[in-house]
Amino acid sequence: MEQSYLRKILALVQNGELSLDDAVLKIREEPYTDLGYAMIDNHRQLRQGFAEVIYGEGKRKDQILGITKKMLESGVKTILITRLSEEKASYIGKGLGLAVEKPFFQYHEIPRLAIIGPVPEPAGRGTIVVASGGTSDLPVSEEAALTAQALGNKVVRLTDVGVSGLHRLLSHLDEIMSATVIIAVAGMEGALPSVIAGLADCPVIAVPTSVGYGAGFGGVSALLAMLNSCASGVSVVNIDNGFGAGYQAAMINRK
Amino acid sequence: MEQSYLRKILALVQNGELSLDDAVLKIREEPYTDLGYAMIDNHRQLRQGFAEVIYGEGKRKDQILGITKKMLESGVKTILITRLSEEKASYIGKGLGLAVEKPFFQYHEIPRLAIIGPVPEPAGRGTIVVASGGTSDLPVSEEAALTAQALGNKVVRLTDVGVSGLHRLLSHLDEIMSATVIIAVAGMEGALPSVIAGLADCPVIAVPTSVGYGAGFGGVSALLAMLNSCASGVSVVNIDNGFGAGYQAAMINRK
Amino acid sequence: MEQSYLRKILALVQNGELSLDDAVLKIREEPYTDLGYAMIDNHRQLRQGFAEVIYGEGKRKDQILGITKKMLESGVKTILITRLSEEKASYIGKGLGLAVEKPFFQYHEIPRLAIIGPVPEPAGRGTIVVASGGTSDLPVSEEAALTAQALGNKVVRLTDVGVSGLHRLLSHLDEIMSATVIIAVAGMEGALPSVIAGLADCPVIAVPTSVGYGAGFGGVSALLAMLNSCASGVSVVNIDNGFGAGYQAAMINRK
Amino acid sequence: MEQSYLRKILALVQNGELSLDDAVLKIREEPYTDLGYAMIDNHRQLRQGFAEVIYGEGKRKDQILGITKKMLESGVKTILITRLSEEKASYIGKGLGLAVEKPFFQYHEIPRLAIIGPVPEPAGRGTIVVASGGTSDLPVSEEAALTAQALGNKVVRLTDVGVSGLHRLLSHLDEIMSATVIIAVAGMEGALPSVIAGLADCPVIAVPTSVGYGAGFGGVSALLAMLNSCASGVSVVNIDNGFGAGYQAAMINRK
Amino acid sequence: MEQSYLRKILALVQNGELSLDDAVLKIREEPYTDLGYAMIDNHRQLRQGFAEVIYGEGKRKDQILGITKKMLESGVKTILITRLSEEKASYIGKGLGLAVEKPFFQYHEIPRLAIIGPVPEPAGRGTIVVASGGTSDLPVSEEAALTAQALGNKVVRLTDVGVSGLHRLLSHLDEIMSATVIIAVAGMEGALPSVIAGLADCPVIAVPTSVGYGAGFGGVSALLAMLNSCASGVSVVNIDNGFGAGYQAAMINRK
Amino acid sequence: MEQSYLRKILALVQNGELSLDDAVLKIREEPYTDLGYAMIDNHRQLRQGFAEVIYGEGKRKDQILGITKKMLESGVKTILITRLSEEKASYIGKGLGLAVEKPFFQYHEIPRLAIIGPVPEPAGRGTIVVASGGTSDLPVSEEAALTAQALGNKVVRLTDVGVSGLHRLLSHLDEIMSATVIIAVAGMEGALPSVIAGLADCPVIAVPTSVGYGAGFGGVSALLAMLNSCASGVSVVNIDNGFGAGYQAAMINRK
Amino acid sequence: MEQSYLRKILALVQNGELSLDDAVLKIREEPYTDLGYAMIDNHRQLRQGFAEVIYGEGKRKDQILGITKKMLESGVKTILITRLSEEKASYIGKGLGLAVEKPFFQYHEIPRLAIIGPVPEPAGRGTIVVASGGTSDLPVSEEAALTAQALGNKVVRLTDVGVSGLHRLLSHLDEIMSATVIIAVAGMEGALPSVIAGLADCPVIAVPTSVGYGAGFGGVSALLAMLNSCASGVSVVNIDNGFGAGYQAAMINRK
Amino acid sequence: MEQSYLRKILALVQNGELSLDDAVLKIREEPYTDLGYAMIDNHRQLRQGFAEVIYGEGKRKDQILGITKKMLESGVKTILITRLSEEKASYIGKGLGLAVEKPFFQYHEIPRLAIIGPVPEPAGRGTIVVASGGTSDLPVSEEAALTAQALGNKVVRLTDVGVSGLHRLLSHLDEIMSATVIIAVAGMEGALPSVIAGLADCPVIAVPTSVGYGAGFGGVSALLAMLNSCASGVSVVNIDNGFGAGYQAAMINRK
Repeated sequence: MEQSYLRKILALVQNGELSLDDAVLKIREEPYTDLGYAMIDNHRQLRQGFAEVIYGEGKRKDQILGITKKMLESGVKTILITRLSEEKASYIGKGLGLAVEKPFFQYHEIPRLAIIGPVPEPAGRGTIVVASGGTSDLPVSEEAALTAQALGNKVVRLTDVGVSGLHRLLSHLDEIMSATVIIAVAGMEGALPSVIAGLADCPVIAVPTSVGYGAGFGGVSALLAMLNSCASGVSVVNIDNGFGAGYQAAMINRK
Repeated sequence: MEQSYLRKILALVQNGELSLDDAVLKIREEPYTDLGYAMIDNHRQLRQGFAEVIYGEGKRKDQILGITKKMLESGVKTILITRLSEEKASYIGKGLGLAVEKPFFQYHEIPRLAIIGPVPEPAGRGTIVVASGGTSDLPVSEEAALTAQALGNKVVRLTDVGVSGLHRLLSHLDEIMSATVIIAVAGMEGALPSVIAGLADCPVIAVPTSVGYGAGFGGVSALLAMLNSCASGVSVVNIDNGFGAGYQAAMINRK
Repeated sequence: MEQSYLRKILALVQNGELSLDDAVLKIREEPYTDLGYAMIDNHRQLRQGFAEVIYGEGKRKDQILGITKKMLESGVKTILITRLSEEKASYIGKGLGLAVEKPFFQYHEIPRLAIIGPVPEPAGRGTIVVASGGTSDLPVSEEAALTAQALGNKVVRLTDVGVSGLHRLLSHLDEIMSATVIIAVAGMEGALPSVIAGLADCPVIAVPTSVGYGAGFGGVSALLAMLNSCASGVSVVNIDNGFGAGYQAAMINRK
Repeated sequence: MEQSYLRKILALVQNGELSLDDAVLKIREEPYTDLGYAMIDNHRQLRQGFAEVIYGEGKRKDQILGITKKMLESGVKTILITRLSEEKASYIGKGLGLAVEKPFFQYHEIPRLAIIGPVPEPAGRGTIVVASGGTSDLPVSEEAALTAQALGNKVVRLTDVGVSGLHRLLSHLDEIMSATVIIAVAGMEGALPSVIAGLADCPVIAVPTSVGYGAGFGGVSALLAMLNSCASGVSVVNIDNGFGAGYQAAMINRK
Repeated sequence: MEQSYLRKILALVQNGELSLDDAVLKIREEPYTDLGYAMIDNHRQLRQGFAEVIYGEGKRKDQILGITKKMLESGVKTILITRLSEEKASYIGKGLGLAVEKPFFQYHEIPRLAIIGPVPEPAGRGTIVVASGGTSDLPVSEEAALTAQALGNKVVRLTDVGVSGLHRLLSHLDEIMSATVIIAVAGMEGALPSVIAGLADCPVIAVPTSVGYGAGFGGVSALLAMLNSCASGVSVVNIDNGFGAGYQAAMINRK
Repeated sequence: MEQSYLRKILALVQNGELSLDDAVLKIREEPYTDLGYAMIDNHRQLRQGFAEVIYGEGKRKDQILGITKKMLESGVKTILITRLSEEKASYIGKGLGLAVEKPFFQYHEIPRLAIIGPVPEPAGRGTIVVASGGTSDLPVSEEAALTAQALGNKVVRLTDVGVSGLHRLLSHLDEIMSATVIIAVAGMEGALPSVIAGLADCPVIAVPTSVGYGAGFGGVSALLAMLNSCASGVSVVNIDNGFGAGYQAAMINRK
Repeated sequence: MEQSYLRKILALVQNGELSLDDAVLKIREEPYTDLGYAMIDNHRQLRQGFAEVIYGEGKRKDQILGITKKMLESGVKTILITRLSEEKASYIGKGLGLAVEKPFFQYHEIPRLAIIGPVPEPAGRGTIVVASGGTSDLPVSEEAALTAQALGNKVVRLTDVGVSGLHRLLSHLDEIMSATVIIAVAGMEGALPSVIAGLADCPVIAVPTSVGYGAGFGGVSALLAMLNSCASGVSVVNIDNGFGAGYQAAMINRK
Repeated sequence: MEQSYLRKILALVQNGELSLDDAVLKIREEPYTDLGYAMIDNHRQLRQGFAEVIYGEGKRKDQILGITKKMLESGVKTILITRLSEEKASYIGKGLGLAVEKPFFQYHEIPRLAIIGPVPEPAGRGTIVVASGGTSDLPVSEEAALTAQALGNKVVRLTDVGVSGLHRLLSHLDEIMSATVIIAVAGMEGALPSVIAGLADCPVIAVPTSVGYGAGFGGVSALLAMLNSCASGVSVVNIDNGFGAGYQAAMINRK
């Protein structure tokens, strides 16, 4: 694997996307930094070309701050932290010597997500549409939309366009038909991706949400419905995994 | 309960729907006939006003014939037999001294259902629409449609109108908006009832089918989706239970 | 769909149920108002002829107040808010410039449900019976009963008539036999709808509740029992979905 | 354990229920005979006082014959073989040098059960009632009834008394109220034990059957309903386990 | 049913177990008292011959007090209240004008159970053994044991005799072999009832508990193990349903 | 929707991808042809730009032949039929007046898939890699690979590269790192997509297969593992849904 | 990894366990042979030191024969084929130019397992005990026992020692207490491993079997019971995975 | 069983591992001490040769202290208490007359585990490797590692070596290939044990963790994946059961 990684660095140098100094640094750098509680993959950004991501749930705030600092030191430009409570966000914002809500550190309450560093200019092949069934799906659909934006994509949001009121969806047919990839977010019966995939001619990533009660089983009904979609072109991520959908959409939209 | 049953008989006499002789017979008749392997409810047709129904699965053909004959003897006009194999149907047709396919004994292969006696004239409040998602749902949707017809209802069928091709459904908006009750039959992601209930202003009975594979779990995915419908006015019956939907629709459509 | 909507408006004008001015307003009105966090369906009340409903769970109190105000402005007479905490109810009552518990804004603690505006006079074909198995089922059975009343129906309540003490149920045989539609609410083994459907000759809507423990699985046992009812004429809604049952019952009972 | 076993033998001698010779034999006998494919418990009949039972499923016919012969040799009087196919039964009947259907070897087709040796005279405290919901439950209810009879009990059968037609059940109230123990057998929604336990004042053993389809999940719905019975005095055995219910009922009915 | 109830009263009069005055009272009494939130079955104690039971969970403390008072007024001697929090118990104790812990009102913290009135003298056929697997099963096993005692039975407790240390169980073989009925309480792998039923010759009621974690699924693993017991004579109640087991054991032990 | 469809036709005319005559035909054509048992979507190929697909399971062979003929008549070039038994394939091949295995009609036994008409030249952005865990996964991985090929893509197959022998996978690192999209097919523990996604920098579509036994639950274990992948960039389709993965991969790889 | 593999070869040469010629051959050999339908790992036997294993299910007989021949060519001494039908075994026996049942090719019907080549002399640290609950568990327990033997271990079998008859188990306490590792095989309630682990002081590998019915769910009940064992020292393999248990036991018993 | 226990004592005397006085004490000692709420097994340490273990969850702090004191009194050297909250730990530390964190009483916060008494010197056959997938798995992997250490084993930890970044794992190939037994701890898709077992030639004990969300179902996905591992030599313990894995690993590593 070292060879392929090396070839990637050289290709970036050839394209002028990496300076000679940075290349030297990168080649000499250890592939992993061991912080004791976590191993940071120093080659990942080069290998996959995206911002770094930290999954905030189940990590202590000092651990997240430690990982963040180490990444910034090693040259990472943009860091996405998902599933981050407001309290942890405040601690990290202060720890970075910055007031929360400043451009360099944005925290989004509804999806509980932080972006450190600049959000890159949209650079994908086209537009990513993020459609969601109802108001309660917003935490998940916003996680998807902001992830895609943080990874350098143009995003169009269609909110509260659930299938029980088709007109709301049909009035956005143009956005749907011109998308490069669509993320369809829904709880309860999870029918939105099937209806959208029947209208669109691009890949649809379905995100079930835990919205609902009783036999919704915390999103399982929506998940199953999406896996059984009668429309072609649909794939599915885990319940409430807005990040995963945004990340894959970004990969699909990459030039 | 005897009182309420008696009152029912008298009301029918008052309305001229029951002759004096039949009323006398009914009042004297035992409420149940015990055939050893089954107890036949002699009061049921009067109490509920519908054709008699025999669930054919798990009963031997001689048992079904025995029950059928006893019912005809005690004055039942129309008998519906559901989940009846072709082989059993042939036996029963012969046992009744009649060729299969004669008006008096109709057997429908796809829904595996027999109707003995005349199909009553439509007498309900309006029309029952039976919509189904795909070709493979036909055995269930036909069971529903024929049940409703055998119980005296006008039925309109919308076949292969699944949600992944909305135009097929939307081209039948008039039928949907003028129905008294709609039966929506679908397998896989089970989204059809939600979409229809958003378009209609009458009750929708959802019937999940076991059509699908893998995470369809024999109709469970569709069932869960239907129970979690985000549209108001939807209720659900068991997987593949076309009969149950047709029966309840007939009750709803009754004047 | 616009055509069918238009035809509906004209029919209402023809029947004198809609004034010329209101008709003009309705025809010109946008089908949806986008509040950012929700899209309000301005045509729905006309299309479906019922009070508007807001599902309170998962919406912030200011959002609910915003939606309520917008609906009242656009001419909605009666609004039902379900799954509304007492704290939110108090906020909304004040926000509407009204004391809680005044006729115009009623809040019902046990089913956590608010009704804004006048409860219409009963106008259905007959009576809706709401039967429940035990004391703990009251939050759900009351949600069903109040929903049906708010949508203009006469409701009879049979409380604590579970199957383990048949006499309690059998002493209400008259109400059961004269109902237009019955809502049967039960947790635990969920047997009530089967027993009632065997006694009645009208549709029965079964509502499983999450009452119970252990292998009750939060209402799943009751749900499965109801889906497998051996009695004809039963359909089922989601666990604890008293609203859904009340809404469908109202549709069935509509003239 | 040897001590308690010994004490049992001596008590039987004291009561005159065991001859001296048999006692000597029993005391000297090895507790188990190893047939290679099975270990036969030679002390069990004395310890538990019942006929021996062989579970026929998953054993080859020569194995069953071998076990049977060894048991008869060691003095067992009555042997019950459950889940025995007709073909195996015929082989065993011949292997024992006897025509099938002779008093010494009875084979019951519906419950697929054989009884070898005399069926003992009823000797329990009272009557065991076996009630079943429908015709399709007969294989299970007959397994229960015949097991109880083979273990020396008086059995009363109530067939096809499902809860959707209460009159059939209520007409047998006397049998229900005078039973020592009741076995209630039902598939689908499994409500029969709850209704019976509300009427009776003796223990009720509930047996779910795999009768049903779709969300019946092969008897799981009935099983769950029975475990969640709102009536006191109900316990449950495995799906289709008529034998287990009959065996426990016999233990309860023992003087 | 009235007839059978009447016959019961007369039989009690004949046996001298009911005074003439009480009989008159009972015959005239309404079968149910409707408290609005609950219907109290006034005939039940006579019909089933046991203390009255109130399931405390999901009822408000004033409701429980109201039901209790009404029962005491109508002549009930002993009342069992299960699943009762300490706070509610204190309220009810005061409401009855009595200090908690006085003989007339006992509250047991571990099983969260109250007994109002005298605990009857043991009057059953023999002894009920309550065996439990571990210390954490005590809340359930004590609910079973106290229920059986409150219903007039002699109870022997075997605590912490789980199958991973067989000696603890085998040292109590005498109690096991001389019981009339055994209640076996266990969580985790739920093997205790199978082992006990192999040693005993009386019915075993198995009670799965929610003790455990991970793939214990809140008692489901233990429940399934018990339903699949390879030993004869085992039946099962719901997870943590110590009351149900104690109640049925009392019925079995009744003379 | 008509407008967007019309615009699509005009765009194709503008780009020279559609002749004037064909455009006229398309504009005049009915959107759906109703064959009674199926409604054929005449606009779909234009709308979505792909070959037509028929899901063969649950359709009769004469129905499939009828649909195929109708499609060929209306100008479809390439038709994919999935889940087609050999017997049906032979019937259809003959019905089209062609010997099976001729270039125009290819049937692939292992994935039970037929391609009618020419397989288009690869025209996508890059290469689709189809990796599978073991020999038994071939029916599914071949369905995916052939679907992608039939829709005009270059496909590279990596067979039997399961995670329990990492060297087999690591020796193909170049193919993995240069793919545009990867389809990872695996049964049992379903770990392949996670490992591949960690190595690749393109989207990975995970396909669980029903290969395995016991707690594999017909592919559910693999499905769950894939939904819970710790690697970013993975989405999932239904169990054994090779077609779905191939179709979405083709959409992603489209220029 | 190449280094560690190389070091292994050199160590074997150093220990005299590998000749120089074989070492040269091994070093030069390709790590994998690609047969098209399978990749054979040529280094595995050296790396893991065991006989080669082929999982027969889902492979065609010619594929299995092909793999077998290739392995024998490359110097493998002993090959184990599991889940092999009798018909395939016969084909392979002939294909190897040998009569079935000759020492070189043994086929075992009950566990459907073949051993090609010599069974090595026992060379482990001690004895592997394979205990099974009942006769029906033999296919699985024999798969475990023969696997362990084929991998060079001494095996002691304890058959039909289920927990409902403890004496059968307790009479083998010496074997249990002197084992190096115990494999405990059981279906139904799966209690055997817990009881054995409480008696033994060595690791216990639990194998659930699919023996049982109803709520046994094809071995799931036994699996869950084993995962929740209250005894320390138990780990679990998949349902019916006798091979897996035998293989791990051999690893544990290796010197 | 007494015999085998006695033989064990004598063997320890013979080997000089037990003094004569201790042997006399042990032989005279009662096998169990009954504390009322728990029965302490006084023979266990001798029988199984390990430190004593107390499962802290579900026991009150005074109970744990009581058990601990009784064990220390009866000569136990090292006691492990698992699932112990910090608050209980503090109470017990004080109750033992010792400051928390002193050598004699260590409390480990992350795995919530206490060790009382000396940690024995490593005395096993080799090294136990504990590998974990991510930072959030630390509570479980530390429970496993500390258990193994407390039972006298050398442990090597590999932290944060999940399969989505193979390099982190592959850089530790030497530790993996030289281990005697490996514990592989992972949540989410649970793939780590399969990958490790493919690299190692020793037994692998897989521990699923409840890390994850949505379709992770609290560790069930990881559990299923591990049970279905395509690699040989893997067995599985309950979700989050680090103790069980550490205990079995210690048994395997014992000389």
